[in-house]
Amino acid sequence: MDSGRVITFLTDFGTQDAYVGVMKGVIASISPQAQLIDLTHAIPPQDLYAARFNLLNAVPYFPEHTIHVVVVDPGVGTSRRGIAVQTEAGVLVGPDNGVMSGVWQQFRFQKAVDLTNPKFWRVTVASSTFHGRDIFAPAAAHIARGIPLEQLGHEIAPESLKRIDLPLLSWGEQFVRGGIQYIDHFGNGITTIPADAVKGNPQQVLIGQTELPWCSTYGAAAPGHPLALIGSHGWVEVAVNQGSAAQMLRFKIGDSVTCFFSN
Amino acid sequence: MDSGRVITFLTDFGTQDAYVGVMKGVIASISPQAQLIDLTHAIPPQDLYAARFNLLNAVPYFPEHTIHVVVVDPGVGTSRRGIAVQTEAGVLVGPDNGVMSGVWQQFRFQKAVDLTNPKFWRVTVASSTFHGRDIFAPAAAHIARGIPLEQLGHEIAPESLKRIDLPLLSWGEQFVRGGIQYIDHFGNGITTIPADAVKGNPQQVLIGQTELPWCSTYGAAAPGHPLALIGSHGWVEVAVNQGSAAQMLRFKIGDSVTCFFSN
Amino acid sequence: MDSGRVITFLTDFGTQDAYVGVMKGVIASISPQAQLIDLTHAIPPQDLYAARFNLLNAVPYFPEHTIHVVVVDPGVGTSRRGIAVQTEAGVLVGPDNGVMSGVWQQFRFQKAVDLTNPKFWRVTVASSTFHGRDIFAPAAAHIARGIPLEQLGHEIAPESLKRIDLPLLSWGEQFVRGGIQYIDHFGNGITTIPADAVKGNPQQVLIGQTELPWCSTYGAAAPGHPLALIGSHGWVEVAVNQGSAAQMLRFKIGDSVTCFFSN
Repeated sequence: MDSGRVITFLTDFGTQDAYVGVMKGVIASISPQAQLIDLTHAIPPQDLYAARFNLLNAVPYFPEHTIHVVVVDPGVGTSRRGIAVQTEAGVLVGPDNGVMSGVWQQFRFQKAVDLTNPKFWRVTVASSTFHGRDIFAPAAAHIARGIPLEQLGHEIAPESLKRIDLPLLSWGEQFVRGGIQYIDHFGNGITTIPADAVKGNPQQVLIGQTELPWCSTYGAAAPGHPLALIGSHGWVEVAVNQGSAAQMLRFKIGDSVTCFFSN
Repeated sequence: MDSGRVITFLTDFGTQDAYVGVMKGVIASISPQAQLIDLTHAIPPQDLYAARFNLLNAVPYFPEHTIHVVVVDPGVGTSRRGIAVQTEAGVLVGPDNGVMSGVWQQFRFQKAVDLTNPKFWRVTVASSTFHGRDIFAPAAAHIARGIPLEQLGHEIAPESLKRIDLPLLSWGEQFVRGGIQYIDHFGNGITTIPADAVKGNPQQVLIGQTELPWCSTYGAAAPGHPLALIGSHGWVEVAVNQGSAAQMLRFKIGDSVTCFFSN
Repeated sequence: MDSGRVITFLTDFGTQDAYVGVMKGVIASISPQAQLIDLTHAIPPQDLYAARFNLLNAVPYFPEHTIHVVVVDPGVGTSRRGIAVQTEAGVLVGPDNGVMSGVWQQFRFQKAVDLTNPKFWRVTVASSTFHGRDIFAPAAAHIARGIPLEQLGHEIAPESLKRIDLPLLSWGEQFVRGGIQYIDHFGNGITTIPADAVKGNPQQVLIGQTELPWCSTYGAAAPGHPLALIGSHGWVEVAVNQGSAAQMLRFKIGDSVTCFFSN
């Protein structure tokens, strides 16, 4: 049974080398009907936070039986586990280093296995440096063909899985404070403040010493002017209309952003 | 009916973030049989001219029922319209800002609609910042499934559509003058002078103070030497054999290039 | 007969322009069922060695009927031939400049043809600058549809094909010496020394004045520390655990690496 399921890829491999192509070749050899879609390969090397962010914000837009392969893996070749995790929003395949934890926390964990069955590796002895090719890609392809997770390895308890949690917010009656968690290609700064936390529109938004008007679209600010808004991911975002907020306001990951409300 | 039509993507999203992947996930959820092909995601942010150039030069090489999704959209969140345009060379989906006008002017306009029917959006209230995901990708996917354009919104007249026209050439009996309209990855400078305008081979080609020999292939100049020729797009092109003309001759978009003919 | 064969792409086109998309459009017009997979488009312009390396190390991971299109082509427009080569590991399509020779030498040459039959070009007169679009992409698509190689042009003898051979190693009873042949996205330096040549583990590895510990995984060195190991491609590799060896050790292509053995 080869059902044409979608398999996505999110790595820090870049696109200079043929590493991503090789993973796709391995999958095409096992599950020729799978539809292969890249999320991104430009995660900064071994940056679990950027990977977590991009994965978490992409998963909800895919068909529910999608299989997401994540290879951002500073611990490859150490004793960290390779895992497959079934959730309500698809299957995750990758290292057990917390990079996928945002997804299975948000989209209901169903089961997880440790990918220890070499019958479903590409080779009997996996390369010690390229589990993406030798373990994760074949696992995803076999799952796409209908192999149940239980055959890929023994089941493991969710409590044993690594998690990465976002820096907590502080808040009071009249403010909520978060940090910049991600800076995208356009220089927009996405904060850790979810849309839910600013349902009454903020009266004032501060990043460093800069006060930002609260808008509903980029275009509501004049070209070249900064603003704050609910971004397309559903987080409070710091932006510049037709410009780069990161360049203009010189913020970096972790810088704090505060929304004040009137009472 | 899901016919395996090709859907292409041309954006300024870059490939750092998962934005393009998210659009593909939305499409795979609606039209799983569509074949997804990237044109480029490296359009300089909000550069309508570079987008226009790449789209216009790619469309003729695709199957005639292809759907091209274009998201270079400085006006997102303002009142600019989102449109789908049927032409003899396929369907165009994107913002009404002129970026697609080169195609429907060249490949016979057939009809256009304003994408106002929220039944075919991904959500009832579209994000004010990411119409690529919420309006354009779903529109393309529904078109791929056979939904007629008329259902996606009300028909609009071609006269009302925005256009971007290229800087006009000047010419005389013995010369034709255009400008650099695009600089590609290799540093080739593609001008606004079409092949048709230089049917009698030019005797002399000038960019700034530099005179270029007229050749039929890159290889006709010595390695490292500049030349002018009809490029693969069908425009007069300034190049360096096995090198970068943009680096060597230091031209930029808009610089003028003149072809002289003998009489 | 359109069998859904895999067609891969390896070029130096970059991803700024729509050149790669155009090749895929040409293929989708001829062989809509083919599955299109990118190896890389970031080969440094006209770098036959980097192209050779990436191709050779990707081919073995693909299904055996895969067609690999290679367009790294400093001689386009000169008299160099365009060829298709059948091997035990798939079909290669590209210029006869040696870039594909590593594959047909390693995976058993079967036959080769010169792509001279204009019936299978995209146009009767091929562009003198973009054979990828006009000759190689259509050839690959026709092969995917089941057209025998013999119809694409006349058969040519393997002795007449260009080859690129790697710099030879020097070795003695107690050492083997190779050079850096490729530096990947992570800054790992892949040498010309194959795994077979270091079956007894080296006692000492030297690059320049730096001695490297011999490890079986990146993680066996402390984070930020250099090491040597058998990389995932099967070559001796110089790396830094969670860092860039190329930045730390400042090596470049061609620098020599020596493995010493005790007796």
